[in-house]
Amino acid sequence: MADNNTMVSRFFLVAIWTILMVTCVVATRYEPNWESIDKRPLPSWYDESKIGIFIHWGVFSVPSLISEWFWYDWKTQNSSKAQKFMKDNYKPDWTYQDFADQFTAELFNPDEWADIFGASGARYVVLTSKHHEGFTNWPSKYSFSWNSMDVGPNRDLVGSLADSIRKKTSMRFGLYHSLFEWYNPLYLQDKANKFQTQDFVKFKTLPELYEIVNTYKPEVIWSDGDWEAKDVYWNSTDFLAWLYNDSPVKDTVVTNDRWGSGCACHHGGYYTCSDRYNPGKLQNRKWENCMTIDKASWGYRRDAKISDMLTMEELITTLVETVSCGGNILINVGPTHDGRIVPVFEERLRSLGQWLDVNGEAIYSSKPWTFQNDTETPAVWYTAKKPAAGGMNVYALVLKWPSPGDFYLASPTIGTNTKVTLLGYDDPIACRKAPGTKNNGIILTIPAIPFNKMPCDYAWVFKMENLVSRK
Amino acid sequence: MADNNTMVSRFFLVAIWTILMVTCVVATRYEPNWESIDKRPLPSWYDESKIGIFIHWGVFSVPSLISEWFWYDWKTQNSSKAQKFMKDNYKPDWTYQDFADQFTAELFNPDEWADIFGASGARYVVLTSKHHEGFTNWPSKYSFSWNSMDVGPNRDLVGSLADSIRKKTSMRFGLYHSLFEWYNPLYLQDKANKFQTQDFVKFKTLPELYEIVNTYKPEVIWSDGDWEAKDVYWNSTDFLAWLYNDSPVKDTVVTNDRWGSGCACHHGGYYTCSDRYNPGKLQNRKWENCMTIDKASWGYRRDAKISDMLTMEELITTLVETVSCGGNILINVGPTHDGRIVPVFEERLRSLGQWLDVNGEAIYSSKPWTFQNDTETPAVWYTAKKPAAGGMNVYALVLKWPSPGDFYLASPTIGTNTKVTLLGYDDPIACRKAPGTKNNGIILTIPAIPFNKMPCDYAWVFKMENLVSRK
Amino acid sequence: MADNNTMVSRFFLVAIWTILMVTCVVATRYEPNWESIDKRPLPSWYDESKIGIFIHWGVFSVPSLISEWFWYDWKTQNSSKAQKFMKDNYKPDWTYQDFADQFTAELFNPDEWADIFGASGARYVVLTSKHHEGFTNWPSKYSFSWNSMDVGPNRDLVGSLADSIRKKTSMRFGLYHSLFEWYNPLYLQDKANKFQTQDFVKFKTLPELYEIVNTYKPEVIWSDGDWEAKDVYWNSTDFLAWLYNDSPVKDTVVTNDRWGSGCACHHGGYYTCSDRYNPGKLQNRKWENCMTIDKASWGYRRDAKISDMLTMEELITTLVETVSCGGNILINVGPTHDGRIVPVFEERLRSLGQWLDVNGEAIYSSKPWTFQNDTETPAVWYTAKKPAAGGMNVYALVLKWPSPGDFYLASPTIGTNTKVTLLGYDDPIACRKAPGTKNNGIILTIPAIPFNKMPCDYAWVFKMENLVSRK
Amino acid sequence: MADNNTMVSRFFLVAIWTILMVTCVVATRYEPNWESIDKRPLPSWYDESKIGIFIHWGVFSVPSLISEWFWYDWKTQNSSKAQKFMKDNYKPDWTYQDFADQFTAELFNPDEWADIFGASGARYVVLTSKHHEGFTNWPSKYSFSWNSMDVGPNRDLVGSLADSIRKKTSMRFGLYHSLFEWYNPLYLQDKANKFQTQDFVKFKTLPELYEIVNTYKPEVIWSDGDWEAKDVYWNSTDFLAWLYNDSPVKDTVVTNDRWGSGCACHHGGYYTCSDRYNPGKLQNRKWENCMTIDKASWGYRRDAKISDMLTMEELITTLVETVSCGGNILINVGPTHDGRIVPVFEERLRSLGQWLDVNGEAIYSSKPWTFQNDTETPAVWYTAKKPAAGGMNVYALVLKWPSPGDFYLASPTIGTNTKVTLLGYDDPIACRKAPGTKNNGIILTIPAIPFNKMPCDYAWVFKMENLVSRK
Repeated sequence: MADNNTMVSRFFLVAIWTILMVTCVVATRYEPNWESIDKRPLPSWYDESKIGIFIHWGVFSVPSLISEWFWYDWKTQNSSKAQKFMKDNYKPDWTYQDFADQFTAELFNPDEWADIFGASGARYVVLTSKHHEGFTNWPSKYSFSWNSMDVGPNRDLVGSLADSIRKKTSMRFGLYHSLFEWYNPLYLQDKANKFQTQDFVKFKTLPELYEIVNTYKPEVIWSDGDWEAKDVYWNSTDFLAWLYNDSPVKDTVVTNDRWGSGCACHHGGYYTCSDRYNPGKLQNRKWENCMTIDKASWGYRRDAKISDMLTMEELITTLVETVSCGGNILINVGPTHDGRIVPVFEERLRSLGQWLDVNGEAIYSSKPWTFQNDTETPAVWYTAKKPAAGGMNVYALVLKWPSPGDFYLASPTIGTNTKVTLLGYDDPIACRKAPGTKNNGIILTIPAIPFNKMPCDYAWVFKMENLVSRK
Repeated sequence: MADNNTMVSRFFLVAIWTILMVTCVVATRYEPNWESIDKRPLPSWYDESKIGIFIHWGVFSVPSLISEWFWYDWKTQNSSKAQKFMKDNYKPDWTYQDFADQFTAELFNPDEWADIFGASGARYVVLTSKHHEGFTNWPSKYSFSWNSMDVGPNRDLVGSLADSIRKKTSMRFGLYHSLFEWYNPLYLQDKANKFQTQDFVKFKTLPELYEIVNTYKPEVIWSDGDWEAKDVYWNSTDFLAWLYNDSPVKDTVVTNDRWGSGCACHHGGYYTCSDRYNPGKLQNRKWENCMTIDKASWGYRRDAKISDMLTMEELITTLVETVSCGGNILINVGPTHDGRIVPVFEERLRSLGQWLDVNGEAIYSSKPWTFQNDTETPAVWYTAKKPAAGGMNVYALVLKWPSPGDFYLASPTIGTNTKVTLLGYDDPIACRKAPGTKNNGIILTIPAIPFNKMPCDYAWVFKMENLVSRK
Repeated sequence: MADNNTMVSRFFLVAIWTILMVTCVVATRYEPNWESIDKRPLPSWYDESKIGIFIHWGVFSVPSLISEWFWYDWKTQNSSKAQKFMKDNYKPDWTYQDFADQFTAELFNPDEWADIFGASGARYVVLTSKHHEGFTNWPSKYSFSWNSMDVGPNRDLVGSLADSIRKKTSMRFGLYHSLFEWYNPLYLQDKANKFQTQDFVKFKTLPELYEIVNTYKPEVIWSDGDWEAKDVYWNSTDFLAWLYNDSPVKDTVVTNDRWGSGCACHHGGYYTCSDRYNPGKLQNRKWENCMTIDKASWGYRRDAKISDMLTMEELITTLVETVSCGGNILINVGPTHDGRIVPVFEERLRSLGQWLDVNGEAIYSSKPWTFQNDTETPAVWYTAKKPAAGGMNVYALVLKWPSPGDFYLASPTIGTNTKVTLLGYDDPIACRKAPGTKNNGIILTIPAIPFNKMPCDYAWVFKMENLVSRK
Repeated sequence: MADNNTMVSRFFLVAIWTILMVTCVVATRYEPNWESIDKRPLPSWYDESKIGIFIHWGVFSVPSLISEWFWYDWKTQNSSKAQKFMKDNYKPDWTYQDFADQFTAELFNPDEWADIFGASGARYVVLTSKHHEGFTNWPSKYSFSWNSMDVGPNRDLVGSLADSIRKKTSMRFGLYHSLFEWYNPLYLQDKANKFQTQDFVKFKTLPELYEIVNTYKPEVIWSDGDWEAKDVYWNSTDFLAWLYNDSPVKDTVVTNDRWGSGCACHHGGYYTCSDRYNPGKLQNRKWENCMTIDKASWGYRRDAKISDMLTMEELITTLVETVSCGGNILINVGPTHDGRIVPVFEERLRSLGQWLDVNGEAIYSSKPWTFQNDTETPAVWYTAKKPAAGGMNVYALVLKWPSPGDFYLASPTIGTNTKVTLLGYDDPIACRKAPGTKNNGIILTIPAIPFNKMPCDYAWVFKMENLVSRK
């Protein structure tokens, strides 16, 4: 029971808080400059989600060789592999755009995709609405005859997937969008003008950005293709101010940091810095590790071998390292030209979901702990989470199964009530203070768990409750 | 020999004329309004030329059924023929744009086209740079991936033909351009906005017009597709003022009258009024009869029968009627998807050239005469021409061969020196005053010309010199 | 009225004739050797018909360049034109068979073909059932997956045309058939075995011949592709004995002479000798001049120019020369891959029909006359015909229009009742004995016929009745 | 050192053996009847090999839906899935043969296939030379224009793979061949004639069989498609007598039992009985379990899900059951139309190879043991092998990992020297007589092997040496 004084002070606190919030809401009308934009707090769903699925799909899925940069490799880089492939298999004047007819998507079943992505344990999905080729996967007003309704699939791919994701799962739906287009003549003209003209931005890329936000209400805008020009060319801060102030997704949308050369890792929403960014230590700002199951490509590659695919061990390792250091992971799969997620990707994603069924407690809504990895024992990473009951649970994610017997962790400090469990395993794990250390360290007694009783096949999680908290 | 007074007065006249001309040149900076635009004199080459070739070529040349309006017939008119054709021969989700790949143009030899067009006796050529489908036959900056370089021919069709026409012939080169595009979403949006917005005009159709003028320097701009919106939507007068004042073809370019709803037959350059306009009487302003050899279509129709083709008699009849009434004729042929002028068109065009070899004197640089056709005898039309030596030659173009013996023409008035010849025939034609008439009328004595001595097979021209001129 | 004796003798004559006929029928069971085969009388319809239409249609109609020998030119002759075309327009490993998909025939309307062919005045039609490429235009049991039902048109082309020709016209329907196939491995194996093996004949080409006769009952078997092997390899006499003795068309079928190397011009049915055979003098045996409107090809050539097409004058000249010398003419047109007879061919054929409407009397059922062409006056050819009333009408087919006045023909001998008319012209033509000659010669007085009264534009026929017959 | 007597007797033995062998060779000229054919001993390599790879590749790999029976499902079964797919994605008159163009095989690298198959541990490979569609994967003389050289790949697929398998691996190369062809009209005609005619056999299917044997020298002829007609229709015993007596592979070739209705499981070489034959008990004659990794299809199915794929546990279970009962296993993968073994298949095959690296000793060259599976403990199967040193090693293949502690096997009888090991694990496995049994039974003491020390993830093999042999 609360005494009166407390009640009174509570009343004042609530009143003041309300005033502040109102002020705050009034105050958070963002200005079109980085100082203002960068201040926007990231909607909380994003950090809690930890895992997203990235999908690279486009006309590049037709040749589906080398990577989604096939056009550029062929025409600008003069890649001998691309040139040989074209010479051997197409008539001499075949153009990249001629591939679009074969982007058939006839087996594209967005409900099946939703099922697979949902089963992976991911909490959001990011689809390429338009890659550097400029082909829009939705019927854009600004890309007449170079979009998925006019040629190829004859379908609104973005809209179809958005609907299925929202109807069949509780995942958030986001969109990748490339600011530049390699070979759009308007862009090339602006570039030749040293970006002193903005025809491309005004007539093409910005109208499209507004169009996808208004039409599909994506909760992630994953911007890319920004690096050749500064944000003032792209009018990025104008767009972001609108996105945060007035767009239909202003309250929940998150964006990344690729909004002009020099922006990545410095401005915007969460940081992506470079592809497959995995710094291995805690970062100041929320970040995302976007990476691929096919180690060599974001788009589907027909000639990928099984050795090109991340093993589950590698995938889980990357996930664990990323989440421990405060990042989200955005796991990419490339669908085929006819609209399939091939079995090897499905297997990886469903296996991830099975792992998360056991170990998700250490991932979702977790926070980085004091230590990201163990100071002594390699291949051990930590996350932490405040349980409702108070205190702090610490999760040691162990990438290599320790042999039965003593297993020493240097970073945690055992307390009197410390309790250790192995997620997915019934019996408690015995623990004791590590001898010969001051405060730190804990020794777990790893049991001889028979093969068929192991909770999973890779990356086991020891949950430690009631540790002594450390600075 | 001239006396001194005459010499002096001549000097003054020349001086004054020079001043006036200079003033005039200074004065003729056109304002972007019809009053000013309409005042521009038509460059003289155009009226002198009389005959042009019109070419409708585009993605519609792939289905090449019904007409160049195939897309509209299929999708908007729901033409049962178009729908049946698509259902029987294409997969259900085939789009119009999917045809573009088959616009191969692999047999397109612009030098051959130039040879055929040149042999026809035409003096200018007008090619569709872009029809209502929006596909540009040149690599437009404003039509990325929906142009002849990016898909289909993989070639600059406009540029190739311009080069050949100019290199191989003395014909002028002109371009047809459709202002609207049936299914361009920017246009449809402007239209939905009752043409209060101009996104389509600003981002697509006007930039393209400027682009083709600057790039290909066409001496005819044959505007079309204007009728759904007023000229203020299209910014037509702005464009025309620039075209006449500052464009690279400002001195020689001619344009037609399709610059906005209500313009045709009222404003612009020469009048076209409606397709196949052939009024049968003299017009106040220079006009053009654009018409087709395939009576039913401008674009190539694969299923055209020989009965759909104008016979030479019909073609020459139309030419004669048109020129007599002050018009130019623009004769259309539709090339195939692979770039050929089919033999039936080639035969008509070369036959026309053979006819003109004999009878061109009555056509090129001719002027309408006092009478356009004979007041009494049907199927006789007149043109006139001032010979260098003075006076006026009148040409009676006779569409039906008269039986040997007397042939009465009511409109000419015979004079004392009147001399009549049949173009292409050596012996003079006897003539005498028609009895029982006041002044008018002339009777020609048609000789019994053996079959193998006839100058041509249709439309024979009697040239009458030294007639008595009439009001 | 007949007296009794006459009646009795008539009875005996009829009886004897009947016995002879029966004997004869019994006797005319042909043996499989040339001596017997060559004795078969040609069914009379064939000589009476004079004019047939030849149609070359097949997979070669897809590339439709060079000629129907495209495959051979490309692969065996290494024609630089064929090789360049393939290199420029197809992927490197494109095969000839890959063209079959594009043999679409979607505009093939056999009733329209029947209308055009019927309008030409031809009396029979011969379609390529299979050319040297081996592709059968009917669903052959012996050409699985290389026939017009299994790939390409998805239709029985032979059956469709046979039906229309028979339903819509009174023309006879015949079939061309190539014995050999350039690249059939069974044939190549037999050839490598110096034709001592007959696998190809037994498993492929003969079964097909029997199949088309039994299925489509063609009244012409136009054999070809025989020249690399002797008739004993082809089993030709066996087939012909069956065809004449037991086939469903045994009474009316005609065949040509291409039944093995050395056969042409020596054995079989009528003679074709070589392509475009036009000997210019009377032959001992019925023969046929197979020729083409496109001077350079039997199959459709997309790049044929109007100058490659026979003019009507040339076509009628060939017809006249051929028929005068006792031949039939087989006029070839090549349909397109999509099933059209293009307008230039339609125009030639319909113009031929118009000429025959006027002049057919001198062609159909005519016989060679004593003289084939005039002994003195060039460009005059003769045919003759016994009128029902007795005597012999002689037709002078004049290829160049004579000038008005005297026109001397050296070969005819004028009689007392000789009457001369110009077909298609009402007034009689005056004639008289040529002075200074013994018996021969006639002088016609050519009237000054006005242009518009001429019966036709080329090849005029003077019909001469009651000449004095000459040896 | 040998004494003389021994030498003499040796000499005689060799002499007698030589005589017997010669006699034998003379004697084993097989007659074309089952009694003789069935007596031929199976070449020993086959039983020793145990594992083969089966490859279904053909035009069916283009639609690659439902199964390699797509054509039949579409046209004969009227499968609604096939019909909907065709209706939605192809023009109405699309034929099955039209797919052949898209059988491109442009990524087919037979060396890569050889690498994958070799890595799987299989000892032979069987490729479909021709499936029921009749398309030959080699340039057959008897399948003009319906083979992989003339359409589609433009390559000798059979020859390419044969070369790579032989050059890159020590595997044997075999060929699947379908006797019948669903829609070959010659076959359909024979069938309509109740198989009293043999045109199809004589002109098509038998010539092809001889051709592939002579050309590619396959050491497996895997016959199929036999069931609609008796072996006398197929001339099977004639072919087999030739194959065994005179063919280039007479000494090493093996065949199966599908040589006419009623043959399967009764005559021929080894038995296959039905697809996926896995009887679970010892058979009288050598047999083969042909089965698929994609549970639903032999041909590649684009829409196969990961749940349609055998897991490694399922695959190894089938392998173990099959080999224990004396069978070979023929594991099928379906390559794609462009020539790839997709990663999910590659993963299964390489994982199989890894398992065999550890456990192959219990598989290759093994013999069925007295017991095939344990009489008491489920999921335990046995094989046996005579070591060089004599005696008999028995292998217990355990499909479920037993918990640490006692593991009872009822079938083996422990002896005094019995030694038990776990393949891939260093320490010996303790064993003892099972108490309360007479002679039989052995109790193994399963150690608590840590997860990371387990020799494999599925199907562990306990090798038992020096058991007491049992009847």
